[in-house]
Amino acid sequence: MQQSADAGWLRRWGLAHNMRIRKLILRALEEDIGSGDVTSRSVLSGKERGTARVIAKGGLIVAGMDVFRDVFLVRDDNLVFTAMAADGDSVAEGSDLARIAGSTKSILEAERTALNLFQRMCGIATLTARFAEEVKGTGVSILDTRKTMPGLRVLDKYAVRVGGGINHRFGLDSGVLLKENHIFAAGGIAEAIRRVRNTAPPSFKIEVEVRSLAEVREALESGAHIIMLDNMDNKTMAEAVGIIGGKAIVEASGNATLANVAGMARTGVDFISVGSLTHSVHAADISLILEQ
Amino acid sequence: MQQSADAGWLRRWGLAHNMRIRKLILRALEEDIGSGDVTSRSVLSGKERGTARVIAKGGLIVAGMDVFRDVFLVRDDNLVFTAMAADGDSVAEGSDLARIAGSTKSILEAERTALNLFQRMCGIATLTARFAEEVKGTGVSILDTRKTMPGLRVLDKYAVRVGGGINHRFGLDSGVLLKENHIFAAGGIAEAIRRVRNTAPPSFKIEVEVRSLAEVREALESGAHIIMLDNMDNKTMAEAVGIIGGKAIVEASGNATLANVAGMARTGVDFISVGSLTHSVHAADISLILEQ
Amino acid sequence: MQQSADAGWLRRWGLAHNMRIRKLILRALEEDIGSGDVTSRSVLSGKERGTARVIAKGGLIVAGMDVFRDVFLVRDDNLVFTAMAADGDSVAEGSDLARIAGSTKSILEAERTALNLFQRMCGIATLTARFAEEVKGTGVSILDTRKTMPGLRVLDKYAVRVGGGINHRFGLDSGVLLKENHIFAAGGIAEAIRRVRNTAPPSFKIEVEVRSLAEVREALESGAHIIMLDNMDNKTMAEAVGIIGGKAIVEASGNATLANVAGMARTGVDFISVGSLTHSVHAADISLILEQ
Amino acid sequence: MQQSADAGWLRRWGLAHNMRIRKLILRALEEDIGSGDVTSRSVLSGKERGTARVIAKGGLIVAGMDVFRDVFLVRDDNLVFTAMAADGDSVAEGSDLARIAGSTKSILEAERTALNLFQRMCGIATLTARFAEEVKGTGVSILDTRKTMPGLRVLDKYAVRVGGGINHRFGLDSGVLLKENHIFAAGGIAEAIRRVRNTAPPSFKIEVEVRSLAEVREALESGAHIIMLDNMDNKTMAEAVGIIGGKAIVEASGNATLANVAGMARTGVDFISVGSLTHSVHAADISLILEQ
Amino acid sequence: MQQSADAGWLRRWGLAHNMRIRKLILRALEEDIGSGDVTSRSVLSGKERGTARVIAKGGLIVAGMDVFRDVFLVRDDNLVFTAMAADGDSVAEGSDLARIAGSTKSILEAERTALNLFQRMCGIATLTARFAEEVKGTGVSILDTRKTMPGLRVLDKYAVRVGGGINHRFGLDSGVLLKENHIFAAGGIAEAIRRVRNTAPPSFKIEVEVRSLAEVREALESGAHIIMLDNMDNKTMAEAVGIIGGKAIVEASGNATLANVAGMARTGVDFISVGSLTHSVHAADISLILEQ
Amino acid sequence: MQQSADAGWLRRWGLAHNMRIRKLILRALEEDIGSGDVTSRSVLSGKERGTARVIAKGGLIVAGMDVFRDVFLVRDDNLVFTAMAADGDSVAEGSDLARIAGSTKSILEAERTALNLFQRMCGIATLTARFAEEVKGTGVSILDTRKTMPGLRVLDKYAVRVGGGINHRFGLDSGVLLKENHIFAAGGIAEAIRRVRNTAPPSFKIEVEVRSLAEVREALESGAHIIMLDNMDNKTMAEAVGIIGGKAIVEASGNATLANVAGMARTGVDFISVGSLTHSVHAADISLILEQ
Repeated sequence: MQQSADAGWLRRWGLAHNMRIRKLILRALEEDIGSGDVTSRSVLSGKERGTARVIAKGGLIVAGMDVFRDVFLVRDDNLVFTAMAADGDSVAEGSDLARIAGSTKSILEAERTALNLFQRMCGIATLTARFAEEVKGTGVSILDTRKTMPGLRVLDKYAVRVGGGINHRFGLDSGVLLKENHIFAAGGIAEAIRRVRNTAPPSFKIEVEVRSLAEVREALESGAHIIMLDNMDNKTMAEAVGIIGGKAIVEASGNATLANVAGMARTGVDFISVGSLTHSVHAADISLILEQ
Repeated sequence: MQQSADAGWLRRWGLAHNMRIRKLILRALEEDIGSGDVTSRSVLSGKERGTARVIAKGGLIVAGMDVFRDVFLVRDDNLVFTAMAADGDSVAEGSDLARIAGSTKSILEAERTALNLFQRMCGIATLTARFAEEVKGTGVSILDTRKTMPGLRVLDKYAVRVGGGINHRFGLDSGVLLKENHIFAAGGIAEAIRRVRNTAPPSFKIEVEVRSLAEVREALESGAHIIMLDNMDNKTMAEAVGIIGGKAIVEASGNATLANVAGMARTGVDFISVGSLTHSVHAADISLILEQ
Repeated sequence: MQQSADAGWLRRWGLAHNMRIRKLILRALEEDIGSGDVTSRSVLSGKERGTARVIAKGGLIVAGMDVFRDVFLVRDDNLVFTAMAADGDSVAEGSDLARIAGSTKSILEAERTALNLFQRMCGIATLTARFAEEVKGTGVSILDTRKTMPGLRVLDKYAVRVGGGINHRFGLDSGVLLKENHIFAAGGIAEAIRRVRNTAPPSFKIEVEVRSLAEVREALESGAHIIMLDNMDNKTMAEAVGIIGGKAIVEASGNATLANVAGMARTGVDFISVGSLTHSVHAADISLILEQ
Repeated sequence: MQQSADAGWLRRWGLAHNMRIRKLILRALEEDIGSGDVTSRSVLSGKERGTARVIAKGGLIVAGMDVFRDVFLVRDDNLVFTAMAADGDSVAEGSDLARIAGSTKSILEAERTALNLFQRMCGIATLTARFAEEVKGTGVSILDTRKTMPGLRVLDKYAVRVGGGINHRFGLDSGVLLKENHIFAAGGIAEAIRRVRNTAPPSFKIEVEVRSLAEVREALESGAHIIMLDNMDNKTMAEAVGIIGGKAIVEASGNATLANVAGMARTGVDFISVGSLTHSVHAADISLILEQ
Repeated sequence: MQQSADAGWLRRWGLAHNMRIRKLILRALEEDIGSGDVTSRSVLSGKERGTARVIAKGGLIVAGMDVFRDVFLVRDDNLVFTAMAADGDSVAEGSDLARIAGSTKSILEAERTALNLFQRMCGIATLTARFAEEVKGTGVSILDTRKTMPGLRVLDKYAVRVGGGINHRFGLDSGVLLKENHIFAAGGIAEAIRRVRNTAPPSFKIEVEVRSLAEVREALESGAHIIMLDNMDNKTMAEAVGIIGGKAIVEASGNATLANVAGMARTGVDFISVGSLTHSVHAADISLILEQ
Repeated sequence: MQQSADAGWLRRWGLAHNMRIRKLILRALEEDIGSGDVTSRSVLSGKERGTARVIAKGGLIVAGMDVFRDVFLVRDDNLVFTAMAADGDSVAEGSDLARIAGSTKSILEAERTALNLFQRMCGIATLTARFAEEVKGTGVSILDTRKTMPGLRVLDKYAVRVGGGINHRFGLDSGVLLKENHIFAAGGIAEAIRRVRNTAPPSFKIEVEVRSLAEVREALESGAHIIMLDNMDNKTMAEAVGIIGGKAIVEASGNATLANVAGMARTGVDFISVGSLTHSVHAADISLILEQ
């Protein structure tokens, strides 16, 4: 699970992301610091210098090192931050993740905000990697969903990517997905697809959510590019894959867990989307310790 | 666990919160909708009307009904939202939580954002209530921490309150907490407390984090108002409580779980703070279904 | 060219657009009014009431009536705005477009900003309709580009739609388009497409820009979903269409004018993209006259 | 038409402009890049380096080189931008305008936004210069209007200045202009001017719009500092100039074109304002080509 | 000093002001309320209703009643605010200024912010009125300066107007004022004026600051529209007025006080600018009392 | 009154303050410069270089040197700013405070905004120091209030600190203060305190405002940590201090002036809060002079 060749990926996500991440960091620091850290202001002279070690207190996949660093640098750009692991690295309990040197006051004021973000991102990547491990060799890719924390979607989706998953659409503006309600309103799958063809930008594939083999057939005949099998059992999914026969991409959706995802993968689908990757994150256990 | 007498609590949190919540909702909707929902725009005429039912798919404590509603109303203030449960209610699997009537397109566009927030808040309240239940009758209160999701602290802390917990300080600006590093920098507990006395606003109590019984005694003698026992075992905590003898408030901190919290409570401390209430939230299972 | 059945389209574009449009209107009014209209403030008592007529001083396709109205209402929500034409209507010189009644001062302060936006949008729709007319009956659709005015893309693209065009991707985040430079960097069309397949969200079709028939063949074999013929002459385009044989969508790009677009359409391509629709807009001639 | 001695003019416009321009650039980049450039992110490693040439594909007056550069630098401040022409330069078709070296990905992501702004600004300056050329030697100056694109007024007005025009007021807050409706509401020119004198800041001249020679006389007698002749024919304008006899500044307004502006200038007015300079801009033809 | 005929003046200042005032009120409330009023949240149920009386505890000129009201309404638009005096009214000690009924909690949370703004504005108007009274009958008007509190300029200048003063330019963008340094840089008054003539928008008068009678003459000959006599004694000012002889407007500037302003006025100048009106405000004494 | 050992205090107030101060400076500059300084733009080439001296024109306590500097640097980061005094210094009339070298145009454009802030801050510190001097040796500390200028609270409170005062709570979110109305609503002091104990974060002390000796006793018995004596005469205050007997902190509030504060201090209270420190500031007299 060594992926550090891919480190730096975050930078490739471009300005909009960096801009948004920077705003997010500022808002997070403002939320925590408010009108000022009354404790540090009273006790510290501001001249104390220290060095902090950041340690993994459990095994984890690193994700978000740049974000973690930036929280400290946004707080005080005189801090010296040394990353000792890279996004995608699988590290063991006790590993050093980073070292931060400079104003003790600045380190203390940024600590909580930085860890809150980093622990979430590592938690997401770690879980994603476990899902990816389960389906290894089946040709199936793990997809995320839009079940992310409001304000943090970019980071959540990035962490999924670091953990070995593939991103589904970022939002309602970057993918066409016809759900049951759209189909109902249009009067059927065929008509819904026809409408998209006539008015949507041609750049999007058309994905259709189906609940039965009859709907699988209808979607296929109407020219759906992606067919999402919603909450089907594995046997029905396997049949659906057979019917589709490679003429559309197949996504399985609904309640995938570490326990059942391998079985889902063996049905022959192309993608399995997993909401819990981002809606029920277990924070990775990471500590910051000031050396004395 | 019926707490609906306390419903409406969110409104009492005042403008700043409402303003911030409104901005948070707008940002969350913008994050998801971006340059527009290409699916709905292509398939729906905009005139379709529908009614959605919101259902608890597991037992949970309701928290954030006003926020949930506001996401829909910010998206389209012509929607009619009917809450069928109130913050603090303990509801069983299958219970109706709300009903939303109006433009199908508006409901579909707000659905994901609204659920992302609501499921998190209900998840926090539900877990907090389980912790509170564990310490019931001991006189101990469950405290939250600053380990919240950046941007969502107000909602996270509100949900803790609904679940029966008490809020610790909101941020670094609203409480004095002398940690090991502050004490080290000041040259000792007594000196750190002296500095706070001389320069901090007199409105704050002084809380001191201690790691040994010697430190407990020093903090007590130096006039600490709150003593936080950091990662002590239960036996040591009980001794600390004895030493303090009611002359300061006592908070236990560090790795409280549902399994061990009752034991911690029996040591006689006043508060137990629990980071996992907000840093490792399990989203409550809630569905929105459009009636056809 | 009567398209008013489609009026109200703007509303269907959803919150994100409405939010952005509202911000845009506020910024535009602030830009013009700054620290206040010194003329009106000095001369008017604020109690004068008047009625303004808005008149087309040339034939045009109406686009942006809602935006035009909203500028007045944002300035003063007591104004009474009556639309006398709808988006998509083709109106003759001298037609009444709207009537606005209320505070003279408010009308005068919003006038310039409202007209600046409305004249541009009608100008875009009118030109788009002329292009659409030229290719009528050929099955070809007119596409817009990203050559829009910074800050106004939503309105520019909406006006294209009203004029009978189809929107290309809204931005770099909502469509995959492999240009010469991407292909060069990847080391060829096949490799570039392979990379997109492996990492991009599966929701996007893959569009490839090509400059020769050899590249057409390579793109087709590599599985491109859309092939953009860049600056080819009509004869080469016709050959390309023959080679593609319906196995991919074909877009013609480069210097389309009212004079040559019909010829381009006869080559058999599916779409023709036209940058001048939005980069060189001729403001429609519209006047606001206060009745005395 | 060599004006590069005046290059750097933009910098002299001061912070407010620079701040606003920076915000405008950020908004423009966000509008185009949104949640990220999916193509570049998928195909490029982020390490590719390239050099782009920016070429005038037609003769033009350069305007906005600093803005053009800043879009690239805001996107990636490691890019090396070399201007090869300066604001005010008149360049021939085929001229090199700039060279940009650095990350290919950054160049590609900023390209469209940078060109959208630069092509508009050069287009405005080029047209303004043609108007200025037409009135050369007559002592008349070309004025712009408030018919600018919302959000872009500063850039539009700057480009006019570079092209050899003079700016009229920036907005309603920076000039007093009594139009027909103000005069009607006040009950006459004399009373309108009297009110301005009593309450407006003394720093403003008073400009009055007139439609007849009778109004010219009334404005003159009432002490107008500037008289705007609205939509008069040349003969009437010449008479008006005679009546005014140097006792007020004279501005001609209404439908000036390249064909008729010289004739208007010969009437003896001081200024001619031209709305089409900014409301119907023809984008200058400029290409960015990556060297391979 | 009864000026209430002019009440409502604030509304006439137009959207930009209202928008800015609304933002200012929001920022002010956020500054004070932060993460919430911990006292009210703990003690009040949120259902308490009360009525507050607002009383002048000293004689004063009312200014800013709309702003005062809006703070309460922004906080809670269910409050019922009844103004009992109008901007421009001169009220005696003990007078009722307003009555506010509704949620006790809302009233308490808005109280301080509302009073902070209102007391400043009334303080400015009251002092301005005293200056205006001193120069009554001399034909001189009192001008304000740019020595206002950052963020509050609109309100400060409005209050001056209510108190009977005239506003000087709002900022550096709305008036030309050649100070010593500009003149020095240009190489003399004549050259400085020439440059303004050639490049500045023609809408502005040209004001020149002078320090000697020689400079008065030079400014006059160079065509200055307004001559500002900087820190001259009254005798010199009278001579300057004689030299100018009505050919330019004359402003006296520098250290005007209530004690010396009448003497300055008798020199024959047109305007006297007074920095202390806004840089050293004495808050008017106003109380809010909740009835029990 | 030499306090420069404490200079740099502002930096210790942490990011949130610095961020807010930076935003405040930007808003202040935008407010003053708007669409640009028309005078400088017309007269200066932008290449003029100059040096400005900043001089105290009266004795004062320096406060806000960093803010003063930052206004210049935000405007133009090429300016060279040399502080010649530090926050807390007591300087005599005629002292040099700072020297600024660089673009004349930049200096002129930042001058007014920088002085407006600096003169206020020095004014506050100077007055606070006079109050502190009055109570010297009594053990009493001078407290500020929330009667600050909206938008400037951080600076106002910082200046109080520099002048030798202590800050009371920053806003409603950082201190519990039970006023008459809270007590009335709760049904008495005891009940109000009980409610705070049960629901407010434990980090806050509980302060109670009292108006009689009976209320002093009730507050004391109910466990108030701080008792605020509201508008009592000195004799009653002395009695109250006797009753309290060191079991709570005592704050005197109401109409403290330089004339009466020493007498109030002799009653034995711990703190005296003074609203006029920030609500009625007399700007310190400071000049900026460009050397020629």
